[in-house]
Amino acid sequence: MVYLTRRETFNAAHRLYNNKWTEEQNVAIFGKCANKNWHGHNYQLFVTVKGNPDPDTGFIMDAKKLSDLIKKEVIELFDHKNLNTDTPYFIDVQPSTENFCKVIWRIIEPLISGGVLHCIKLQETENISAEYYGE
Amino acid sequence: MVYLTRRETFNAAHRLYNNKWTEEQNVAIFGKCANKNWHGHNYQLFVTVKGNPDPDTGFIMDAKKLSDLIKKEVIELFDHKNLNTDTPYFIDVQPSTENFCKVIWRIIEPLISGGVLHCIKLQETENISAEYYGE
Amino acid sequence: MVYLTRRETFNAAHRLYNNKWTEEQNVAIFGKCANKNWHGHNYQLFVTVKGNPDPDTGFIMDAKKLSDLIKKEVIELFDHKNLNTDTPYFIDVQPSTENFCKVIWRIIEPLISGGVLHCIKLQETENISAEYYGE
Amino acid sequence: MVYLTRRETFNAAHRLYNNKWTEEQNVAIFGKCANKNWHGHNYQLFVTVKGNPDPDTGFIMDAKKLSDLIKKEVIELFDHKNLNTDTPYFIDVQPSTENFCKVIWRIIEPLISGGVLHCIKLQETENISAEYYGE
Amino acid sequence: MVYLTRRETFNAAHRLYNNKWTEEQNVAIFGKCANKNWHGHNYQLFVTVKGNPDPDTGFIMDAKKLSDLIKKEVIELFDHKNLNTDTPYFIDVQPSTENFCKVIWRIIEPLISGGVLHCIKLQETENISAEYYGE
Amino acid sequence: MVYLTRRETFNAAHRLYNNKWTEEQNVAIFGKCANKNWHGHNYQLFVTVKGNPDPDTGFIMDAKKLSDLIKKEVIELFDHKNLNTDTPYFIDVQPSTENFCKVIWRIIEPLISGGVLHCIKLQETENISAEYYGE
Repeated sequence: MVYLTRRETFNAAHRLYNNKWTEEQNVAIFGKCANKNWHGHNYQLFVTVKGNPDPDTGFIMDAKKLSDLIKKEVIELFDHKNLNTDTPYFIDVQPSTENFCKVIWRIIEPLISGGVLHCIKLQETENISAEYYGE
Repeated sequence: MVYLTRRETFNAAHRLYNNKWTEEQNVAIFGKCANKNWHGHNYQLFVTVKGNPDPDTGFIMDAKKLSDLIKKEVIELFDHKNLNTDTPYFIDVQPSTENFCKVIWRIIEPLISGGVLHCIKLQETENISAEYYGE
Repeated sequence: MVYLTRRETFNAAHRLYNNKWTEEQNVAIFGKCANKNWHGHNYQLFVTVKGNPDPDTGFIMDAKKLSDLIKKEVIELFDHKNLNTDTPYFIDVQPSTENFCKVIWRIIEPLISGGVLHCIKLQETENISAEYYGE
Repeated sequence: MVYLTRRETFNAAHRLYNNKWTEEQNVAIFGKCANKNWHGHNYQLFVTVKGNPDPDTGFIMDAKKLSDLIKKEVIELFDHKNLNTDTPYFIDVQPSTENFCKVIWRIIEPLISGGVLHCIKLQETENISAEYYGE
Repeated sequence: MVYLTRRETFNAAHRLYNNKWTEEQNVAIFGKCANKNWHGHNYQLFVTVKGNPDPDTGFIMDAKKLSDLIKKEVIELFDHKNLNTDTPYFIDVQPSTENFCKVIWRIIEPLISGGVLHCIKLQETENISAEYYGE
Repeated sequence: MVYLTRRETFNAAHRLYNNKWTEEQNVAIFGKCANKNWHGHNYQLFVTVKGNPDPDTGFIMDAKKLSDLIKKEVIELFDHKNLNTDTPYFIDVQPSTENFCKVIWRIIEPLISGGVLHCIKLQETENISAEYYGE
């Protein structure tokens, strides 16, 4: 079993805001992240697949094809977008780094062939990242 | 003459959009950057001051004080903000990396003491940065 | 289960030196790291907590609160300090990267709420890091 | 149990090419990586050993000795080399990142003392890496 | 005057070898870099243009168009290539980092519009880079 | 004219403390950096030389020889040392990043051959660096 990781990057705006709460409660919990006019990040996404390298290619999964898949299915959806308003994933769910990992897992997991999806890691800033292993 | 550089980071949303143009023209010129619902970045700001180190302190300017100044006068203004709507600097000016450098220069240049402001460098993504030297 | 990692940085001096050994033995084992006048590092600390994101906040643990906790309980103790002489943790224990991870785990583990501490990773130089998972 | 990671770097040329296939098949599968005149990379190698820190030294394994071992047994073999033609490891095996991890594991695993080899991670580009845990 | 820098990356094989010298002289001067079977690098290319930001776009030059230009005219030529044998630029010229900067300058300088080419910086490894300003 | 930069790294302890001042004055000016028991940093040193690449080698100066020179004349002096007590350079001069650049310039400038020393850049932390150009 070998693990292969592919990094891709994208930029997006978002806001943490719970509609069940008052403005004051949102600011108390989310601070500057609740800004009604949004803020944004350069996200780094690390997709790790695991499997046995194919004897003919040496690949678990062709890193170029994995890149194409991530770009088509994930980057296209989120790059230069507003996570809250331009995508259907964060209507009732906060676009936190933690939840965003789970969203990306659910999008990409059924599409991985050759290997098996092992981990979605998302770096939101140089100081904050999250990882999800599917369970 | 020695040059001292201090790095600070902040996150913001923005949009490139020229009100004199139609929606189609904006998309033709700015592409995904014109998204009406915004996108965002993790900005890295590098402020460089130049001068002769003080014989008693060894400092051109105390890097801690330079950091405090940048945080109070620049980071406070832009961090977790929408550059277009939450600040007065980009009403008639595009919040491009180039223009943003000039805006930060004009804010911070009069406040530097000890040394003299030499350069504002702004890293918008790992692939794009701009520098302004005041003229 | 999602894993959230927060990075913080600090600078410290230290020395590897075993009082049970002669000076020669210390130099033979620790080389330049035994210098009696100390050397130092820029440490990068990565604290990983695991848990289920809260449905209301999307957080395992608020990354800002995790940052505040690390700063108050760990950075305050070690930043700009001499690990051997300014802290009580390395009197009978070498301040190696490995032992330092265990020390930080014991300080911070009881204070984590919401999530559970999963890993302490400490990057001592760009070439050396250690990780401790509590057992 | 603590995990200690040592990073070393080297540069090499390689080519992905399966002799059982036609030139056309190789280009179809490997694309630009099949270039008959080679291409190359700056590799970053991360070797992780695990164990209990020695009470006298604080070390699982002396990071300096681990570095010397990696340099002598791995870097010497591959640095400024052509992986396909200058080494015996990739005659019937593609020099993919995945297979290269396994090759390095087999070279270095028997030589680790004090700790036990836990992981070989190889970063081929800033976007592609692989990890192997020995099974 | 503002300076805009765009980073692009590519991988290539090369060899330093002067045909006027004997094999022994080449090894004496170029060491491992003279390996007849080549070695390679992940190159990072930084292209800096200078100019006045356009009042309508805020751009010296659209960073996306600058990226497209670099990819079409430079990356296409050198990526996954052997600098010595797959390109016409290093027949009588060593593919050193220094000379490579000058080659890229001469390719790209006539094609820059809007701004003016200011600097070609090429990072060959994390420890070695070169810069050329056109004179 | 081309510019070649070589990076080397070292670790050291230091303290900012002016003997002409009281303890209180030192703490007021230097804060935590005045800690009597020292603190330390991982320094990154960037040495830039300028010149015309030699037609036979393509080098301004052999980057390997430049590395050897920096290691022998600078790294050997400062690595795993206490800047204040183990070296003669900071007896009457604060070991600030600014002054340290000037010290390294004076050590290395007479020893550069082939090219001419252009810049000493020293990165003290990820947020603080200084540059000196010799005048």
